This record gives sequence, C-alpha cells and structure tokens, in this order.
Amino acid sequence: MSKLYDIINNIKPIDLEWKEKAHEYLETLAIPYWSLGELLNIAEQLCGIQRTLKPSVSKKCIIVMAGDHGVVDEGVSAFPQEVTPQMISNFVRKGASINALSDVVGSEVVVVDVGVAVDMPEHVANNSIISAKVAYGTKNMLKGPAMTREEAEKSILAGIEVVEKVVKEKGTQLIATGDMGIGNTTPSSAILAVMTGQNVSDITGKGTGIDEGRLINKISVIEKAIQLNAPDPKDPIDVLSKVGGFEIGGIAGIIIGASYYKVPVVVDGLISTAGALIAKALNPNVVDYMIAAHKSMEPGHEHMWKSLNLKPLLDLKFRLGEGTGAALAMNIVEGAAQVIDKVLTFEDANVSQGE
Amino acid sequence: MSKLYDIINNIKPIDLEWKEKAHEYLETLAIPYWSLGELLNIAEQLCGIQRTLKPSVSKKCIIVMAGDHGVVDEGVSAFPQEVTPQMISNFVRKGASINALSDVVGSEVVVVDVGVAVDMPEHVANNSIISAKVAYGTKNMLKGPAMTREEAEKSILAGIEVVEKVVKEKGTQLIATGDMGIGNTTPSSAILAVMTGQNVSDITGKGTGIDEGRLINKISVIEKAIQLNAPDPKDPIDVLSKVGGFEIGGIAGIIIGASYYKVPVVVDGLISTAGALIAKALNPNVVDYMIAAHKSMEPGHEHMWKSLNLKPLLDLKFRLGEGTGAALAMNIVEGAAQVIDKVLTFEDANVSQGE
Repeated sequence: MSKLYDIINNIKPIDLEWKEKAHEYLETLAIPYWSLGELLNIAEQLCGIQRTLKPSVSKKCIIVMAGDHGVVDEGVSAFPQEVTPQMISNFVRKGASINALSDVVGSEVVVVDVGVAVDMPEHVANNSIISAKVAYGTKNMLKGPAMTREEAEKSILAGIEVVEKVVKEKGTQLIATGDMGIGNTTPSSAILAVMTGQNVSDITGKGTGIDEGRLINKISVIEKAIQLNAPDPKDPIDVLSKVGGFEIGGIAGIIIGASYYKVPVVVDGLISTAGALIAKALNPNVVDYMIAAHKSMEPGHEHMWKSLNLKPLLDLKFRLGEGTGAALAMNIVEGAAQVIDKVLTFEDANVSQGE
Repeated sequence: MSKLYDIINNIKPIDLEWKEKAHEYLETLAIPYWSLGELLNIAEQLCGIQRTLKPSVSKKCIIVMAGDHGVVDEGVSAFPQEVTPQMISNFVRKGASINALSDVVGSEVVVVDVGVAVDMPEHVANNSIISAKVAYGTKNMLKGPAMTREEAEKSILAGIEVVEKVVKEKGTQLIATGDMGIGNTTPSSAILAVMTGQNVSDITGKGTGIDEGRLINKISVIEKAIQLNAPDPKDPIDVLSKVGGFEIGGIAGIIIGASYYKVPVVVDGLISTAGALIAKALNPNVVDYMIAAHKSMEPGHEHMWKSLNLKPLLDLKFRLGEGTGAALAMNIVEGAAQVIDKVLTFEDANVSQGE
C-alpha cells in the first residue's frame, strides 16, 4: 500500500497565486462587482486548480462506485440487496436517473464494482463497468468490523486507480462522485457520527424510505455498531474499516485521486460526502479540489458539509444518490468556466464602469 | 389593444389530468419514492403544460428585454444610462454573461429593444436584436407617471409578440426571461411595494452596487414616486404605467405570451419577477406556466416569490439580471424532461420494489 500513502501524502493545496490572479481578472469583467456570486467563486477555484485563467471542464466523468453491505441483514433498508446489481444493470443499459442527467450535462458515466455481493452477469460485466471488487460486500458491522484494514485501503486505492485511468485515457477535466449500494446510508451516517461527534439519532434519516419503526431500529443498529467496534475518529482507515463500506472507500479514493491529479471533483450526496470526510481526514488539502453539489434530504448531510466547510450549490430535495445531484451541479461548474473564458472585460466590451 | 386583452383573457390553467397522469407514472420509475424531489415536480408541470408524458424542452430561447428609466436622473444606479446600449452591443457580439451561460445550456438568446433611450447603432440594430421600441426610455417617475397607460399596454404586447415570433419561427419549447436596463431595480422594487404592501425600506436593495447613502436616496425616491403617482394595486396596468418600466412590461408580456402558447417560462431575477407580478395580476393562470429560476441578492426578491407562491430552484448569490439565473435553471428543467423521458420503471428495468 505504499502507492496509496505516496499519493495521499503528495496532494498539494491549489495554487493561491493563480486563484488570486483569477480573482483580479474576474473583477474586470463587464458585470456589477462579483454579481455572479458562487459562479465566480468556482471560477477562481478552477483557475487555482488548473493554473490558468482559461479553465476547461468540458471533458466530464461521473464515477459511480457500487458496493454491498452486510448490515442490511438488520433490516436497515427499504430495498432488498439484490437491487444493487439490478441497478448496475440498469446503469449499463442507460435506463437510470444518472444516465438521463449525465446526458443533460454532457458527461460520461463510469460504473465501478468495488464490493457488490454477487458477480455481475457477464453481459453486464463485459459492458463498460470496471471491476475492482475488494470483497463480496462488507460484513455485518453489528457483529464486528465491516472490513479489514487492508480491504479499506484497497477500496481507496481502487478509487484512485479509476481516476488515474479516466484522466489518462479520456483526458477527464471534471469528475463527479456517485454511489450505488443498498443499505449505504447506514455506514455513511455511522462515519458522520464517529468523525464529527454528532448524535446518531440527530443525523440518521430514512434513506430510500423506511418507516418510523425501521428508522428507530436503524439508529439503534448504528449506535450499537459504533459501541461494539469503537472506531478511532483520528484514524480514518480505522473508521472506514469498522463502520464503512467499499463504495465509500472508493469515493474517498476518487476524491484523493482527483486532488492528486489536480482535477476538480463534484461531491454528491450523503454517501459521497461520507467518502469526503474520510478523504479529508487523510489529507485536508483535498477540500481545495472539492465542489459541494447539493444538500440532500438526509438530515446528516448538512452536518457533513459544515464539517468540510463547504456550501452546497443545489437544494432540490434529492435523496437518490447515483451521482444525480453532482451531475446537475457539473453544469454550474461548466458555467463558471465559460464565464471566465468568454465574458468580456469593461475595457474590451467598451462598457462604462460604475462607481 | 383588443389583441392584448383577448390573449390575457384566454390563458388556460395547465391540464391537471395530464399532471396527475405524470405523477402516477413518475411513481413507477425505478427510484426511491419521489427521490428526485423538485425535478419530479417540474416534470409533472411540464407534462401538464404540454399534455404528454414525454415533454420536450430541447428548443430553448432566452428573451432579454431592454429599456431605460428616466428615474436614473435621481442617482438611483451605480452605472450611467449609456451602459444599457453598450451592454446590448455586448450581447450582440456574444461577450456578455448571458451569452456564456446560454451556450452552456444550449439556448438561443434574443434581445429586444422595448424602450432603450437611444437608437441602437445600425450594425447592432441589424444584427439579431428585435426592435419593439415603445419610447426612448420611461419618464422620471418622481415627476409623474413613468409612461402612459397605452405605452404600458404596448410594452406588454411587445413581449407577447416576441413569444409568438419565436414559437412560430423557431418552435421554442422553453423560454427564459432576461432584462437589461440601468436603473431597473428601482421600478421593480416600486412594483413589489405597491402590489404586495411591503415597506419600501424592507425590500429595496443596492442593485448593481450603490453605497449606503445612495440606497437611502433610492428608498426615498421610490417612496415619493409611489406617493406622487398613487398607483392602484388592483390595476396592474396602472401600476406598470406609473412606477414601472418598458422591459418590465415586456417581461410581463413574455410570461403572458408563453402561458397563452403553452410554453413553460423560466423567470429570472428581481426585474423579471416584477414582470411576473404584473402578469399574475392580469391573469393568475400564468403562474401554472412559470418556473422560478433563482433567489437573487436583492432583499425584495424572496417576497416576490412568496407572493407568487413559487420556490426558486437556485440560490447562487446572483444580482446581475440578463437572464443569467434563468439560463442555469433551464438545465434543471431539461433534466426534469429527460428523467421522465428516459428513466425506466421498476418493471421495465427488472428492479425489485421496496416496501
């Protein structure tokens, strides 16, 4: 795992000189001062990442990490585990929400099996999904650690290697994170509780739509799993291995890989942001490369953004995952790049300045 | 003006049966129940407008209404009046923010001179802007009505006729409103105050960026203009003529025309929403066709949305106008259309249902 730690330890902050140059340039555009608010903030972030005043994010890739969770045995989800591979098949035939929305924003979708509980059927496995399976689903965290420490590291490395692949093979300039995995709001809420000290009952939600009774059970399962495994909040690999999931590790890897390769990364919902918490704990510089896509309906999600000191772009009452919120946010990021690239300055446009 | 009132009086509500059919269909998609929140709400609105389960909004047009304001003599704006034609020239050479963002969402931009204070230079006038000039700017509303009642009606009709043109010539399926006009937050705030009873001092903001001293003056100008002209809040044409603007009337016309021709219309910032208040007062059915793009930095804007009972999709700290917020929101509307068109049902995707 020396590759993993080499990469983690070599993530640089974004270039503050280029960010400042971008800020000064944006002040000269023929618009009232900073009147495109968040769009200009993103534009200067992109310039700091890409070291240019003409950032480009036209080559986009949404990476959907898929894994299963032993803890579904405890009745924490409204859907059966078989839905994970069924939805992967749906991604491959382009029948899912993420396919519809990726078309709208002109992004590729790459699906990665990092820990699905079954082998994917051959026609699916051969058809554009990447196999990086660490194990056939996590173990039930109510009975012990979800995975070994080595498996946790492998799942993060899997995410990094997918980024390497898309950046090198496709020239990807903007990455979005996505997830698929029945039961995965349970480990995500557990990670949030451990890493930020929030009460489990305050930050645990209904996921795909469980009823009140099952929500009470879900809270109890998370509390007991944390008590049993005693993850160390100062050791993100320990947290991921004890109460996490393979796709969450994979997403942490995407964020680490994107930061290492200086590619901006749009972070989606609760599960993606759990990955972001792990990534930030491994190297805080990753936050420089992240763009917060949206605030989901899960009550814990806003605590995650606060903990990362990021403000989500959208609030559209999503609670789906797959990368759907991040896909829509990619378009706003594209808007930021286009504004700094195309909008003329007061001088070039012959527009009189204000006070 | 019989055409104007014929159209105003013949706007139908959207088709609730198609909206209900869409709702039932959306419940069968292979996603957790209503887990794409606002996107699904928009999808059913589009179905109700277009009477189909396969709505299309791929042919998009942003209509930017431009006009000038006599009240700028009172020092209400940070920019001189000459900026209005300068910015129109910038739109035509595709150097403005709205051009950059329209490219991102694949929309045309149509610029309409409905009341600019000068004649546009010929190379600009001949180059893709529509001339529908009602007058060379409004009069100073601190000295009397901004325009005559007939001019107010003409400005609304101008907006309707632009919609007629784009719908018939280009097959436009989704319209966004935009504005250009130095000083136009002043009449917009005046309209808001008159039509909703809000205090001028609570809802008036700094527009393009005036300082505190000028803000106090701006508030006083608006209060005095309302006192002097005594617009009747029950008579929207009276309000528009006394304290409005030509581009605001034009935008009211776009919304009325879009509703009449059953085209969804994305409403932008403070100025566009002032037009929406006028349009709604003329026929409340127009609200069925509107999509609220974003919440601007102007303090009055959220009161406008509340008065229309609409919730804006975006909150990106914009205060620019031109249709910039509406342009970005068009992409979310496109997402809604693509989701209902492309996402498979549980049955078609062979995905197991939840509880």
